[in-house]
Amino acid sequence: MIDKMKKTAIVGATGIVGQQFLTALKGHPWLKITTLAASIKSAGKNYEDALRDPKTQALRWYINEEPPAEFLEMKVEDASNLDPSKFDVIFTAIESDQAKKLEPKLAAKTAVISTASAFRYESDVPIIIPGINSDHISLLDIQRKKRGWDGFIIPIPNCTTTGLAISLKPINDSFGLRNVIMTSMQAVSGAGRSPGVPSLDITDNIIPFIPNEEEKIQDETKKILGVKEGNNIKEADFNISSTCTRVNVLEGHTESVFVSTKEKCTIKGIKEAMEQYTGTLMDKGLPSAPKKWIVVNEDPFRPQPRLDRNAYGGMATTIGRIRTDNVLKNGVKYLLVTHNTKMGAAKGAVMVAELLVNRGYI
Amino acid sequence: MIDKMKKTAIVGATGIVGQQFLTALKGHPWLKITTLAASIKSAGKNYEDALRDPKTQALRWYINEEPPAEFLEMKVEDASNLDPSKFDVIFTAIESDQAKKLEPKLAAKTAVISTASAFRYESDVPIIIPGINSDHISLLDIQRKKRGWDGFIIPIPNCTTTGLAISLKPINDSFGLRNVIMTSMQAVSGAGRSPGVPSLDITDNIIPFIPNEEEKIQDETKKILGVKEGNNIKEADFNISSTCTRVNVLEGHTESVFVSTKEKCTIKGIKEAMEQYTGTLMDKGLPSAPKKWIVVNEDPFRPQPRLDRNAYGGMATTIGRIRTDNVLKNGVKYLLVTHNTKMGAAKGAVMVAELLVNRGYI
Amino acid sequence: MIDKMKKTAIVGATGIVGQQFLTALKGHPWLKITTLAASIKSAGKNYEDALRDPKTQALRWYINEEPPAEFLEMKVEDASNLDPSKFDVIFTAIESDQAKKLEPKLAAKTAVISTASAFRYESDVPIIIPGINSDHISLLDIQRKKRGWDGFIIPIPNCTTTGLAISLKPINDSFGLRNVIMTSMQAVSGAGRSPGVPSLDITDNIIPFIPNEEEKIQDETKKILGVKEGNNIKEADFNISSTCTRVNVLEGHTESVFVSTKEKCTIKGIKEAMEQYTGTLMDKGLPSAPKKWIVVNEDPFRPQPRLDRNAYGGMATTIGRIRTDNVLKNGVKYLLVTHNTKMGAAKGAVMVAELLVNRGYI
Amino acid sequence: MIDKMKKTAIVGATGIVGQQFLTALKGHPWLKITTLAASIKSAGKNYEDALRDPKTQALRWYINEEPPAEFLEMKVEDASNLDPSKFDVIFTAIESDQAKKLEPKLAAKTAVISTASAFRYESDVPIIIPGINSDHISLLDIQRKKRGWDGFIIPIPNCTTTGLAISLKPINDSFGLRNVIMTSMQAVSGAGRSPGVPSLDITDNIIPFIPNEEEKIQDETKKILGVKEGNNIKEADFNISSTCTRVNVLEGHTESVFVSTKEKCTIKGIKEAMEQYTGTLMDKGLPSAPKKWIVVNEDPFRPQPRLDRNAYGGMATTIGRIRTDNVLKNGVKYLLVTHNTKMGAAKGAVMVAELLVNRGYI
Repeated sequence: MIDKMKKTAIVGATGIVGQQFLTALKGHPWLKITTLAASIKSAGKNYEDALRDPKTQALRWYINEEPPAEFLEMKVEDASNLDPSKFDVIFTAIESDQAKKLEPKLAAKTAVISTASAFRYESDVPIIIPGINSDHISLLDIQRKKRGWDGFIIPIPNCTTTGLAISLKPINDSFGLRNVIMTSMQAVSGAGRSPGVPSLDITDNIIPFIPNEEEKIQDETKKILGVKEGNNIKEADFNISSTCTRVNVLEGHTESVFVSTKEKCTIKGIKEAMEQYTGTLMDKGLPSAPKKWIVVNEDPFRPQPRLDRNAYGGMATTIGRIRTDNVLKNGVKYLLVTHNTKMGAAKGAVMVAELLVNRGYI
Repeated sequence: MIDKMKKTAIVGATGIVGQQFLTALKGHPWLKITTLAASIKSAGKNYEDALRDPKTQALRWYINEEPPAEFLEMKVEDASNLDPSKFDVIFTAIESDQAKKLEPKLAAKTAVISTASAFRYESDVPIIIPGINSDHISLLDIQRKKRGWDGFIIPIPNCTTTGLAISLKPINDSFGLRNVIMTSMQAVSGAGRSPGVPSLDITDNIIPFIPNEEEKIQDETKKILGVKEGNNIKEADFNISSTCTRVNVLEGHTESVFVSTKEKCTIKGIKEAMEQYTGTLMDKGLPSAPKKWIVVNEDPFRPQPRLDRNAYGGMATTIGRIRTDNVLKNGVKYLLVTHNTKMGAAKGAVMVAELLVNRGYI
Repeated sequence: MIDKMKKTAIVGATGIVGQQFLTALKGHPWLKITTLAASIKSAGKNYEDALRDPKTQALRWYINEEPPAEFLEMKVEDASNLDPSKFDVIFTAIESDQAKKLEPKLAAKTAVISTASAFRYESDVPIIIPGINSDHISLLDIQRKKRGWDGFIIPIPNCTTTGLAISLKPINDSFGLRNVIMTSMQAVSGAGRSPGVPSLDITDNIIPFIPNEEEKIQDETKKILGVKEGNNIKEADFNISSTCTRVNVLEGHTESVFVSTKEKCTIKGIKEAMEQYTGTLMDKGLPSAPKKWIVVNEDPFRPQPRLDRNAYGGMATTIGRIRTDNVLKNGVKYLLVTHNTKMGAAKGAVMVAELLVNRGYI
Repeated sequence: MIDKMKKTAIVGATGIVGQQFLTALKGHPWLKITTLAASIKSAGKNYEDALRDPKTQALRWYINEEPPAEFLEMKVEDASNLDPSKFDVIFTAIESDQAKKLEPKLAAKTAVISTASAFRYESDVPIIIPGINSDHISLLDIQRKKRGWDGFIIPIPNCTTTGLAISLKPINDSFGLRNVIMTSMQAVSGAGRSPGVPSLDITDNIIPFIPNEEEKIQDETKKILGVKEGNNIKEADFNISSTCTRVNVLEGHTESVFVSTKEKCTIKGIKEAMEQYTGTLMDKGLPSAPKKWIVVNEDPFRPQPRLDRNAYGGMATTIGRIRTDNVLKNGVKYLLVTHNTKMGAAKGAVMVAELLVNRGYI
């Protein structure tokens, strides 16, 4: 499908999200990692040495699959001195405050796909979920022009937003969303690893607060489901409120959703809309795209994060217990499970890159 | 306060809830256990032997505190042949289908306080949370008359209802409830122990469904917050919808609540109503009553089940993150933690007995 | 390699080990499941219905991968009326007391590979780990003759024995075992699921006793590493003592091993013996055989059950922290991780069947 | 028993061990905290503010009981500028490398009881477990003289050593220890909290290595069970080897122990020696001393960390499954549970202070 492999850099390659990028890109048909970059203290070491704990020499590799051998001997570069013009695309896996400074320098020259929230809420920056709002990509033309960049910044959503927005898309298309009330039960991997969530905090426990998470989800969901109008995305016209909690699950966010629609809807109608949802036609050839965006599971005991997080390679959202809610007008309630470190992070970002290649932006 | 100790029987004494009754009644100033009863296969053994696994001889005692020594040598009686006239009060800790048959036979002669749901939804049966709806007790007079019993059946609510109803009571009193939407994250101890929730099911996982739980909560909450009118309880006039899940927590149910009130309310007003809630005046002298019914914790990371379940001996409900909800009319959202096997089970039932003693029903 | 598929039955097909057999045999090149059998209460139903909980209708399927579609519509037969002459091989996944009665009836006619311990300790019954003691198979000829059977019973070892015996084999071959002291930390899946280990028992806890486990491991290890002499297996000549505990891990048993050898040994020598261990030459073509029997991991923080249990499809044993022990004569200590429900159960049994096909016994 | 309260400082008061000291000393009859000290970044704040996370304002208090109100408003002092002459005793809860520098400065003037390992292995420094080796205290006279200090440093053992040494003491007294082989399953609280053990590392997992832990246990156990000879402790004359692992338990270390004795011993004899062990007579009046040092539990499923860690206020060691080992000469094997953050840390250090007050050293 493409004539030659796109040169790819990972910034923040030694962290857990960076490691997920390496895993997601192993053997990728379109994208080839040519550079690993990280902070100054890793720069100059080969990747394997950069992963080693300086005290214990243990390999700080956090993914269940072994690290891809092809990367272990690559020399890690200093992210702050990276020359962006050498890459077709750069994935960043860094903290938001670092992203705020570094990403514009990179985007001046090339495509930057970011897992950070730093630029998500700017008016010329689309937040893309391929298959859900692929057409928002054209906002990148405006971004480039306005900022005078050769490249651009395109962030993926917060990992809790992703599954929610996917589940809401077919409902909004078919019946129009009025209100959304959501309580999340989020996996510990969403908080990273070092320090991440201490086992002393989460064993036999729930943490009922994740700073800034609820605001992110509320803003991002309305932006993703919005409509491009002129040079902007007009936010979708519904109300949304959420409570986010952390539970003792390794991977896979669970969300309990209550929805009110504008049009009268039936449970059968909601299920059909979800099951038949195919996403934007052109996305079908993307290597990372799941065969189904949404799996509706009729077993009343599903979805469960451990059983459903890996549906279609961790790229599908599994929904269950779809039933009438008697409180909200045209009320429906359901639960969903979405993989926060696959579709919700590195693999999701890789699929954005695939969409951009497909549309000629990379 | 009372002239002599009330003779007390525990039916279902060998199970986990029965064991909680023994623990809750150890050294109780008003109630004295004179008989332990269980199924025919335990009858005739002393209590310690009845607890032993026939194969391994391990003591199947499920409470962290050691079993009270005073009970270990008591002979276990056959519950189906128990003579109720020998007791002032009988606590039952049995399955609902057994309760349906056995409890009326016992109630014909004496007071029966039940943890089962068998009679909760009958019109002449109050579901009592002392301090929340103590005045519903007078329904017992109607029950006795109607059924021709010397005694009566008084069930406690489902353990998830309890904390929810307590948190809603001051809101309803001050501002009037319109709508309630709740997602629960319930502890595994709520499912009992044998089999209870297998570790294979809940480790690194969530179970998104608890059969019949949501209906119970919805019906019970409206009944508890209802008003006695003539010979009936008129259900409180609000809508309620819930999604109940099981999480990997030993004890302490967490609930994420979204509320819409009839009157305009402020967060300050809600907090004050909760903090100042004192319950019905007469209940103050009950030995098991907590000093506070509701603890409002201002730390944004609270309530947490492991840290807050034991507030005031596991009898108080801890509430946190009270904040405005922008979806519902006069919307407020918060989280609560309530101890499912203390206030929500045996200790809660013991407090009902105390209230009944206080009011002259026992 | 074989001319036609071997007709295969699974007895105990609805339980967790039965389900592991279905998963392990999906698409197997030599063995084809033609019958699923279970207890009388499942007989006559199709497999999917037999898996459903009669009360909740939930599908009681306990494996993370979805159930193979090809089996869902198969009619389940009554195990007690199974005609063994219709099968080339029968896998049994039943309790030991049931196995004691049923397996001889089946073995009278055909090959029975058993996960139960019922016959493991009889003198004419080999306990086989392919690649470790494949030559013990010839004991089956004696068993057949002595018992007058057309078939035979061949049990796999206890899941904790398997990894231990594999780790000890190259040490015994190279240096001669004198003493073995082992403490296990076993996964909850080893106890099955219904009831299995209740979450109330194992969360934030360890259970320090598994009835009969230590005796099994001690007897089986010495038998497996023994030598066939005439019509018997002569137990290997070393002492072994173990303490078995249950920990809060889903899958993968961890074992802490202290060994004393007869010959002087070095850490380097032990590692080389383990890494170079290739098993019996003829086993190489078995479809389920791992490329390596033993993985020696030099990272001091390995092996870990979650990271290492799936090495080579869950069929390899991972060993780490091999170091000198200063208490025992010629002392060495190490830790190992072995997958208790793959190599230690169904997949291990399937590999035994493969070995038997390879040697002409099936 | 004492004429006036001893002035007490806590160094490292904001960390998890420091918090355990505050909890352990709340209402103590002999010791009164007059100063809380911590690093320069906490100095000058009141204690409550020093506990708050600068970003989220959450109170970083890690103990299940609420923080003692009497300390919340105390001003935190800079540990590096603390004037030791103002205190009768200083408890330190700091890292070993900091302890190396700071503790000698403090010990020049007053008694320092340390949880760090910095000085444990020096010949003039006793490692004290009251009731086990109280008489080693006289080594402090030598330490003072040799170092020219008014005060002294007295460290408590590693938390895994404590339970092991207690369990071995009566065996050594009665039968003489020859060999000890131990595998530990240690709770996550032993690693502190920030970062401590990430939940991503330990959920559904075991970490088979704790750096330096095995060496500490081996050295400390022989020193504690040693005999004071002249100006030194002569290490006890037995061999010891251990493997230390981290498991998913909040509190309470479990240890699987195999012992060989010099004299012939019986299981009955070992049990009697343990049950009758009373410690040194003079220690009986110490406020924190448990009524029993060792609880022998005959239930084969005990000890379990969640059920047994709090025996006698977390100060007793619970031992179970005492049985013959057939590998070692005069072999015995058993399991023990000891509370790592009570007897094994702050409460254990407080009991050392009590012993020192009792003997006139403070």
